[in-house]
Amino acid sequence: VIVNVLFPSGGCFCRSTFLVDVCACLCVLQIDEEVAKLLQLKAQIGGDDGKHQFVLKTAKGTRDYNPKQMAIRERVFNTIISCFKRHGAETIDTPVFELKETLTGKYGEDSKLIYDLKDQGGELLSLRYDLTVPFARYLAMNKITNIKRYHIAKVYRRDNPAMTRGRYREFYQCDFDIAGQYDGMIPDAECLKIVHEILSELDLGDFRIKVNDRRILDGMFAVCGVPDDKFRSICSTVDKLDKMPWEDVKKEMVNEKGLSEEVADRIGEYVSLQGGMDLAERLLQDHRMSQSKQACAGLSDIKLLFSYLQLFQVTDKVVFDLSLARGLDYYTGIIYEAVLTQAGAVPAPAEAQKGAPAEESVSVGSVAGGGRYDGLVGMFDPKGRKVPCVGVSIGIERIFSIMEHKAEVSEKVRTTEVQVMVASAQKNLLEEKLRLITELWDAGIKAEVMYKKNPKLLSQLQHCEESGIPLVAILGEQELKDGVVKLRVVATREEVPWTHGHTHKYTHSLTQQIPD
Amino acid sequence: VIVNVLFPSGGCFCRSTFLVDVCACLCVLQIDEEVAKLLQLKAQIGGDDGKHQFVLKTAKGTRDYNPKQMAIRERVFNTIISCFKRHGAETIDTPVFELKETLTGKYGEDSKLIYDLKDQGGELLSLRYDLTVPFARYLAMNKITNIKRYHIAKVYRRDNPAMTRGRYREFYQCDFDIAGQYDGMIPDAECLKIVHEILSELDLGDFRIKVNDRRILDGMFAVCGVPDDKFRSICSTVDKLDKMPWEDVKKEMVNEKGLSEEVADRIGEYVSLQGGMDLAERLLQDHRMSQSKQACAGLSDIKLLFSYLQLFQVTDKVVFDLSLARGLDYYTGIIYEAVLTQAGAVPAPAEAQKGAPAEESVSVGSVAGGGRYDGLVGMFDPKGRKVPCVGVSIGIERIFSIMEHKAEVSEKVRTTEVQVMVASAQKNLLEEKLRLITELWDAGIKAEVMYKKNPKLLSQLQHCEESGIPLVAILGEQELKDGVVKLRVVATREEVPWTHGHTHKYTHSLTQQIPD
Repeated sequence: VIVNVLFPSGGCFCRSTFLVDVCACLCVLQIDEEVAKLLQLKAQIGGDDGKHQFVLKTAKGTRDYNPKQMAIRERVFNTIISCFKRHGAETIDTPVFELKETLTGKYGEDSKLIYDLKDQGGELLSLRYDLTVPFARYLAMNKITNIKRYHIAKVYRRDNPAMTRGRYREFYQCDFDIAGQYDGMIPDAECLKIVHEILSELDLGDFRIKVNDRRILDGMFAVCGVPDDKFRSICSTVDKLDKMPWEDVKKEMVNEKGLSEEVADRIGEYVSLQGGMDLAERLLQDHRMSQSKQACAGLSDIKLLFSYLQLFQVTDKVVFDLSLARGLDYYTGIIYEAVLTQAGAVPAPAEAQKGAPAEESVSVGSVAGGGRYDGLVGMFDPKGRKVPCVGVSIGIERIFSIMEHKAEVSEKVRTTEVQVMVASAQKNLLEEKLRLITELWDAGIKAEVMYKKNPKLLSQLQHCEESGIPLVAILGEQELKDGVVKLRVVATREEVPWTHGHTHKYTHSLTQQIPD
Repeated sequence: VIVNVLFPSGGCFCRSTFLVDVCACLCVLQIDEEVAKLLQLKAQIGGDDGKHQFVLKTAKGTRDYNPKQMAIRERVFNTIISCFKRHGAETIDTPVFELKETLTGKYGEDSKLIYDLKDQGGELLSLRYDLTVPFARYLAMNKITNIKRYHIAKVYRRDNPAMTRGRYREFYQCDFDIAGQYDGMIPDAECLKIVHEILSELDLGDFRIKVNDRRILDGMFAVCGVPDDKFRSICSTVDKLDKMPWEDVKKEMVNEKGLSEEVADRIGEYVSLQGGMDLAERLLQDHRMSQSKQACAGLSDIKLLFSYLQLFQVTDKVVFDLSLARGLDYYTGIIYEAVLTQAGAVPAPAEAQKGAPAEESVSVGSVAGGGRYDGLVGMFDPKGRKVPCVGVSIGIERIFSIMEHKAEVSEKVRTTEVQVMVASAQKNLLEEKLRLITELWDAGIKAEVMYKKNPKLLSQLQHCEESGIPLVAILGEQELKDGVVKLRVVATREEVPWTHGHTHKYTHSLTQQIPD
């Protein structure tokens, strides 16, 4: 059609017009070709007009967990949950979405990252952004004044995903909180004991738990001469000290936040301090700090905290660090954060190395954090009744990333727990195999059989090796006649004959054979 | 202001105008009063202008799980997951939302029940409606041709909630599926074995597993004279036989679906049949059924299935029932459904009894269902490659309801697993208690201490009784001097002294004392 239009069969045309037309024509043909290619591509990746035309992907910033990832996830969860249970915690669950207004006004600027549901007629709903606000809502709604609970569940943030560094739009949070009016610092100390236990057991390498107190920070700002209305803003500048040198932090304080050099330098002296109970004692005597009632209350609590931490035998990893200033507005007392201290502890996966700056690959990450928030539940209570809370959140996604990387490098991760493969050496033994596997299942033994009538022995043994099944019970005609079954240890190829038909003997000697 | 307008201080007015004005004024005052009341009410239930003004509720059709419910949930999950693992299943997880188009065209009319997310710029997303479609998407996307996996996760349906009967808008599904090209009926039989194991272990009372085959249904409709285009519609009428007597089902077939009486009666003869392998054999000889290739293929498979079920020793509960006709379009072969057969097996909670009809309280519910769906994965594959699948879904919410009811009636549900309470008989023993509990925690023992410096012994013992802690270690000054700790069995008040300071002896004898 186009050709006909560009080369009219009649009429006059000069040479130059002809060339222009040819060019145009070629151009159009080229465009047509490109369009066809694009349409083909579109058809390949899926369009909207056919049956088999799906975009095969998960939503942006989310991922499936394959069986290997799930096996790692399960192992990490088991370690963490065991610890929570050892400390007498209960668990609760809340819906994945809340009334939109429940979340309103809790996250400041970050509220823009909340996923809203479409208004399909009915309530306005949003996906939960963390587990702390639903917990506070749960306490206020059920008028619960004390509970020790953990909650492990997915939360949702429309953040810029950085999936190669373990930042997703759908991710797990793993929270432990103690709510109730108790004597000072006992629950706070238990939270730190729990972080210590979990990080030790997960074997992620060396770590430190930094502690500070919101009241010490505020008191320090006051005695250094920071105007009241700049506390929060200066706090968030101090928070950058783990990523920026003091000079840059100071520059931000002076140039952007409008502090005088003198005030900034006073702050600088304090935030460089790290220590233990001794530091708290020293600061209680400090001529400036001692003028702030708030700071003194915080410092006394740090002293008390450390006395409990000594009894809990965890002071080796805990450091009182005046530069720790966690972002969340709702903290009212002690705050803490655990970091891995080994360089390279957080490995950068292959993809990240391409584009990201080099430091990323040796960045040492925060793997747990928390603090005391005595005011949040009151925000939900119609009468504003307060329920003091202290809690910790384990940075489970970062831990997954580390464990996944470890697993890739070193060990083979089993995705099933099968103990015995029921196999056959000859044909026509399916019935015998199903009879045997029924005995095993009914005795609580994890067992598999291939879904083929006559699989080759080799393929059955290969399956054992691939999926790490330690034992294989091999049925053969001769053995059936003799009333025995050969049991082979896959790794060593050692064989043990069993008397057939005596389930208990059977399963007993089997259980003896199974490696842990 | 209004009063001034209605009663101008100057100017002429006649009596009648005055009365009208008074009426109007009173009326307005009344309206004002009503408005004030409403505003007050609004303020009480929460508005948008105050700090403490929240509607304290979960979204419609959803619920929190409290610690007791979670303990029951965990127990049920453990039983089910153990069974899946015993059968060598892996597990996967998928995001809670999918691209909207992934779900499009999979659920027919029910698509209107899908929760969509708000378009906040980016992809159009919907909450998952079940776990089967995400599973098929996962297989096609990762080109997986065989896997045996389970997936336990929440799904979302904007259905009319009936929370007292366990129907929620957010609820768990618990799926086990075997994907892959295998020899006939071996995986299908294993699915039924799994249902048998799970329902037996959960101890929900007697049950039956009905089986049928989509091909037998279709073949039966064909030989009975149902027009091809009415198969699905007649199928859904047959599906009502578990709730309606045959007469009513027949009426619907004849009056609403337009079948002749003769055709309906033929169907009626077949759908009243129940049996085992013998019934399949008899129907293979049936003069009408034997004319349908499809029906014969299904019947042969039922025969083969029963031969495997005999080896698995589960035929006591499985019945071949020609009236079983599950709704979902995607089934292509065997279908099955497990029902509890004890009247009153599904108890009606107090709330339900108020309004719901009486039969509801004795309704016997389906607690598992599934079947073979060989075409679904192909719908996602760009080249339409098929991956045969068979699976089962455990009706976990109904099981929760039953277990919750049982727990309410009979036993005390523990919400923690604490084994030992570390208590003190006198004041000023907090340090000693924290030292002791550290030993216990570090030895892996689940232990609790009260977060008070000087709790009363009575309140510590009461806490043990309330939360079912079996043992209490009581520290006292005399015992500390003697280097022993009293260990008391809470239920019997028996006491055993321990030598203090020998952790291993300690924890060993402790472990001996702990009841299972």
